[in-house]
Amino acid sequence: MKLIESVPNFSCTGDTLEKIVDVFRQADEVTLLDYSDDIDHNRSVVTVIGPPEALADALFLAIKKASELIDLRTHKGAHPRMGATDVVPFIPISQATMEDCIELSKTVAERVASELNIPAFLYEQSAATPDRENLATIRRGQFEGMKEKMAGGFTPDYGPAEPHVSAGVTAFGARKPLIAYNINLGTSDLSIADKIAKKIRHAGGGLRYVKAMGVMLEDRNIAQVSMNLTDYEKSSLYQVMETVKYEAARYGVSVVGSELIGLMPMKAMFDAASYYLQLESFEPEQIIEQHLLPKEEGDQA
Amino acid sequence: MKLIESVPNFSCTGDTLEKIVDVFRQADEVTLLDYSDDIDHNRSVVTVIGPPEALADALFLAIKKASELIDLRTHKGAHPRMGATDVVPFIPISQATMEDCIELSKTVAERVASELNIPAFLYEQSAATPDRENLATIRRGQFEGMKEKMAGGFTPDYGPAEPHVSAGVTAFGARKPLIAYNINLGTSDLSIADKIAKKIRHAGGGLRYVKAMGVMLEDRNIAQVSMNLTDYEKSSLYQVMETVKYEAARYGVSVVGSELIGLMPMKAMFDAASYYLQLESFEPEQIIEQHLLPKEEGDQA
Repeated sequence: MKLIESVPNFSCTGDTLEKIVDVFRQADEVTLLDYSDDIDHNRSVVTVIGPPEALADALFLAIKKASELIDLRTHKGAHPRMGATDVVPFIPISQATMEDCIELSKTVAERVASELNIPAFLYEQSAATPDRENLATIRRGQFEGMKEKMAGGFTPDYGPAEPHVSAGVTAFGARKPLIAYNINLGTSDLSIADKIAKKIRHAGGGLRYVKAMGVMLEDRNIAQVSMNLTDYEKSSLYQVMETVKYEAARYGVSVVGSELIGLMPMKAMFDAASYYLQLESFEPEQIIEQHLLPKEEGDQA
Repeated sequence: MKLIESVPNFSCTGDTLEKIVDVFRQADEVTLLDYSDDIDHNRSVVTVIGPPEALADALFLAIKKASELIDLRTHKGAHPRMGATDVVPFIPISQATMEDCIELSKTVAERVASELNIPAFLYEQSAATPDRENLATIRRGQFEGMKEKMAGGFTPDYGPAEPHVSAGVTAFGARKPLIAYNINLGTSDLSIADKIAKKIRHAGGGLRYVKAMGVMLEDRNIAQVSMNLTDYEKSSLYQVMETVKYEAARYGVSVVGSELIGLMPMKAMFDAASYYLQLESFEPEQIIEQHLLPKEEGDQA
């Protein structure tokens, strides 16, 4: 059962978004997990999951629909954007590798470029060169500045050398799942959360795949270490918890609770349970529900 | 998505078992999770899961098949047995209550009794009276002694007052999932594992839903506390781990590892992760795979 997640961002909201989301609702084998639109940003984030081929087809049709419905020449919104479909990340979920996601991102990018005439840029793990890894670098100049930027030598990985007149350009890339994990401290001193955040994050000499900052929870009058784990298999939930605990201990502060925000693969929770229960071996096949997940149909000719 | 697990025990092995298991393989909506046969005991345990109606149909067909293929008059095996299908437990897995399982056990029991003419006894949570809760009580006398036992006033919940001539009688009952969890100690002293087992188990004043005993792992020369959790939602994995740790500490012994044997619901692992990560709230819907599990079709008229 090879499953890949995609989180395409569309430059629209409301009825337009509903028409795009309908493409995923009607797609066989593809599951719509979540979608949310942000009126201020005039932008939406859709979460879908499926086996590679079915996911690729559904994404193409949704990107096509977005290119038909959205005209960036009249689009306004606070969030930076360069395309009707702005960015399409691919994330390995189950029995899929990062290589599978890179391959899929290229397949969809190439099809969008050739059939819809929209320039496609590869970013993150799919990037051909390190200077293309960062999405912000690709998006700089946004839709309005893209024609000039591309004329100046900013060549897409696939498709024409200038942006689509109304749909702009789109970025495609493979990345790891991201887990948002916040730990609450038994103190109202925000500076303690800040100090712990600085020690635990990669930028401060801490864990390789952790971004962190201190945040005040005003309604509860407590400080929080707010974190993103960009590779939970390497920088794990339990490492984060144990590190925050021992950093907090030097200030005589204890952890009073935590929260996981949004969606995550079940493996993240199994990893935490395995560590604390000191399991010598654990197989996902021991989980009853694992046997109820959709099975792969086998390779197609 | 209402899912119930059943673990029917059949008094057969080999080719006969394969023919019975085929019934589950061919059943729509029902998933065969596991099956194992024990030649010495001439007995097999099958694990299946599915929505209530589909599961009931498949179980009935399998029990019918077993009654056609197995003749207990010529059956030999070390394990006590009273029926071609000996016992059929029903276990709530997902969005199903114990009441659902009790109801389903009665539905299947009644159908088996009326259509196959096999006396059906309800046990565990499905039992009409406390003296019928224990399976061993119902099975006492086994197939060979059942005719006399029933003639003496041991009336089935459904079906005729004497056993089926070749298929005997069958017990049906709802129960909680059972988790087998073993904790390994950093000592070769079995008496320490025995003492910890006595303190943690219900019989010794310990946790309500824990059975425990000390076991020697000869190949590793370490002692183990071997446990069954008969209600993991009330006596949790983390409670067991923390209790074994503090009991072992009085002997200066530490926990060196643990193992979970067989199948378990994912909730058991989520509970452990939630405790140790101090999650203030956690919803199964936050797990991506949760959205990929089969959905219920809605109530049928």
